[in-house]
Amino acid sequence: MAANNASENARPKEPIVSPYMPKYPDPMSNISNFKIIESTLREGEQFANAFFTTEKKVEIAKALDAVGVDYLELTSPAASEQSRNDCKVISSLGLKAKILTHTRCHMDDAKLAIDTGVDGLDVVIGTSSYLREFSHGKDMDYITNKAIEVITYIKSKGLEVRFSTEDSFRSDLVDLLSIYKAVDKIGVTRVGIADTVGCANPRQVYELVRTLRSVVSCDIECHFHNDTGCAIANAYAALEGGATHIDTSVLGIGERNGITPLGGLLARMYAADKSYVMNKYDLTKIRDVENIVASAVDVTVPFNNYITGYCAFTHKAGIHAKAILNNPSTYEILKPEDFGMTRYVSIGHRLTGWNAVKNRVEQLDLDLTDQDAKNVTAKIKTLADVRPLSLDDVDTLLRNYHHAKTQGSHNKFLANIETPDMITDMA
Amino acid sequence: MAANNASENARPKEPIVSPYMPKYPDPMSNISNFKIIESTLREGEQFANAFFTTEKKVEIAKALDAVGVDYLELTSPAASEQSRNDCKVISSLGLKAKILTHTRCHMDDAKLAIDTGVDGLDVVIGTSSYLREFSHGKDMDYITNKAIEVITYIKSKGLEVRFSTEDSFRSDLVDLLSIYKAVDKIGVTRVGIADTVGCANPRQVYELVRTLRSVVSCDIECHFHNDTGCAIANAYAALEGGATHIDTSVLGIGERNGITPLGGLLARMYAADKSYVMNKYDLTKIRDVENIVASAVDVTVPFNNYITGYCAFTHKAGIHAKAILNNPSTYEILKPEDFGMTRYVSIGHRLTGWNAVKNRVEQLDLDLTDQDAKNVTAKIKTLADVRPLSLDDVDTLLRNYHHAKTQGSHNKFLANIETPDMITDMA
Repeated sequence: MAANNASENARPKEPIVSPYMPKYPDPMSNISNFKIIESTLREGEQFANAFFTTEKKVEIAKALDAVGVDYLELTSPAASEQSRNDCKVISSLGLKAKILTHTRCHMDDAKLAIDTGVDGLDVVIGTSSYLREFSHGKDMDYITNKAIEVITYIKSKGLEVRFSTEDSFRSDLVDLLSIYKAVDKIGVTRVGIADTVGCANPRQVYELVRTLRSVVSCDIECHFHNDTGCAIANAYAALEGGATHIDTSVLGIGERNGITPLGGLLARMYAADKSYVMNKYDLTKIRDVENIVASAVDVTVPFNNYITGYCAFTHKAGIHAKAILNNPSTYEILKPEDFGMTRYVSIGHRLTGWNAVKNRVEQLDLDLTDQDAKNVTAKIKTLADVRPLSLDDVDTLLRNYHHAKTQGSHNKFLANIETPDMITDMA
Repeated sequence: MAANNASENARPKEPIVSPYMPKYPDPMSNISNFKIIESTLREGEQFANAFFTTEKKVEIAKALDAVGVDYLELTSPAASEQSRNDCKVISSLGLKAKILTHTRCHMDDAKLAIDTGVDGLDVVIGTSSYLREFSHGKDMDYITNKAIEVITYIKSKGLEVRFSTEDSFRSDLVDLLSIYKAVDKIGVTRVGIADTVGCANPRQVYELVRTLRSVVSCDIECHFHNDTGCAIANAYAALEGGATHIDTSVLGIGERNGITPLGGLLARMYAADKSYVMNKYDLTKIRDVENIVASAVDVTVPFNNYITGYCAFTHKAGIHAKAILNNPSTYEILKPEDFGMTRYVSIGHRLTGWNAVKNRVEQLDLDLTDQDAKNVTAKIKTLADVRPLSLDDVDTLLRNYHHAKTQGSHNKFLANIETPDMITDMA
């Protein structure tokens, strides 16, 4: 095991009760028992800007291992000489996560992969009528026979093997179930469903996974693209329907606008079963790996990113701010401190409420009444129609109002301030 | 009507068949008959960075009207003097979209709103046990009586009125249904469900909306926050369950990491019923309003944004690129040209395939064989292990290989190039 292994810093397995869990859980649901196959080093490498050096891949792999993901999936060794070498290097790091590589359903690719020392192969083949016609042009019998040959070979070498179709949601259902049944029968480790084009929606996902769950006894892995905004919700619906493994990438990077993001999935699962997620994964490490990857692929972490986006824990509306200050869980399903983040309640704007201002008065330990807070709030709202005030502006206003009050001139003080810029000029 | 009204440029109502629609549609589903309540000027104003001037609000309102959204929702006139003025100004623009303002369930707020000239009021009150205890502390009887008083008053003035609960998914189901039934009975225009904290998931949304659909006969509006990544999927599930109106904002801006984004919802609905979406909305205008809003709130459009993110239509993997070049619909559920965007197939990297390179040969009109394309592809993969090649690099390599071939020296030419930087040095 590597020195930076997540297990050494794992939290104690304390029971954490989540108020958001279903009252009567579905017996098929795996929302409290799922695994993550982290594919930043495979799907993520298909992102437009991704050109990882071996050193960068090692850095990302270690950072993902620190989060505690169950598997790392790497680009096929058949893609290039560096890809083959990277499989060898990352397999030999001694990470806690199991190492997979993603290959076409070919004997040549399988042999090349096995020689790199990975723990398993994620084998993929296209099955939809679209792909059969336009991509590799093979029929289902050919596909099934090829799959059996490759799977049998990989198993004979003692490795894990997953068999996935591509574009599963536009494939013929009977074709799909037939091939999954055939590979399950010969002992495949997992079957995979992939929404390659990002067309699937959650209720459709739930139905397909539920159906598949009754056909195979092996594990079920799901891979969702995010073109139409359902990648996280589809992953959740798949787990509800009995899927066991979800593919993710850091910030969701991948082909086009990408797949289920690691951070977003962990936010969703935390809301569903905080105890399972917090005992298994180190959520405070999400930001680190996102920063590494964002820098490596030269993108900015989106302002609205799950958990780590700069506004994820910012509260602005007056009515919200009041409730948040009384009890954060009123408007917060994610506890910022569980993710190594902090909460920020914004008060220098025209939607602010006096409760938020009063809270700031208490934080600053000023001796002001509720009526004082209301007076200052009314002034903030007027001034913020000109421009938003910084927290510094608000603090200066409160302190100087407090000072003026000790001299009995607080009403005159407020009346004299006509623009935000005058706040720092007055006393 | 304003000069920039979307209706003047509306497309002809031609039938467009989508291959992604359900084979046997649910009779309760409104995926082919929904309306958008665009809340950038209300929910969006609660985004951390949003401080819109009146002029900016007018610009955003006109740009949203050009997209063809059904309603614009504005911040309550009770929030500040500017907010009240903005309601008046935007109501008098003569836009095709109806103008709403979002107010607390108070007579004072309702009176203030009606005087601004808006077409309707979106009235909201908290109902969850969390909010009842920590926010306004009212019980259900009080809430119901208050709601009836305010709704009756607004109706008496001839305006639309929606009544929404807040934090609906953590409210008591019987309380919720009771109050919705009561306000439906007195003729409310719409009832609203709000996932204020972003905790809801799609199957739960579907169940609640379906249940509500059997209790009320008025329209049903839904509002979803995106803390756990389900805002688009929840909107879709709500429409499947019988909801009629979805709240959106541009880029999803709002409290914390925001709500269902306008562009993302349109991508989802386009995948579900292209004909309905394309006949009703001008999808090529999404980018314009996103640029206006991104600039106004000082954020960058996320790299992975739906439709307009810079990688939304970029294809990289070799196997994908081959199929895309044969038939774009294999890997593209969204036609870039329908959104005023263009497709880009990336070829200068180590995952490239010879089919993509061959396609470029044809685009450049070079006289090279399949074997030539394979030779150059192998060289690209080797060179890209050093650094990714630009399209210019690839083009130079192809052109110079072609030139060398006319002199019979193409194999020697390739062998001599050892680093990407040598591409431009060789001939």
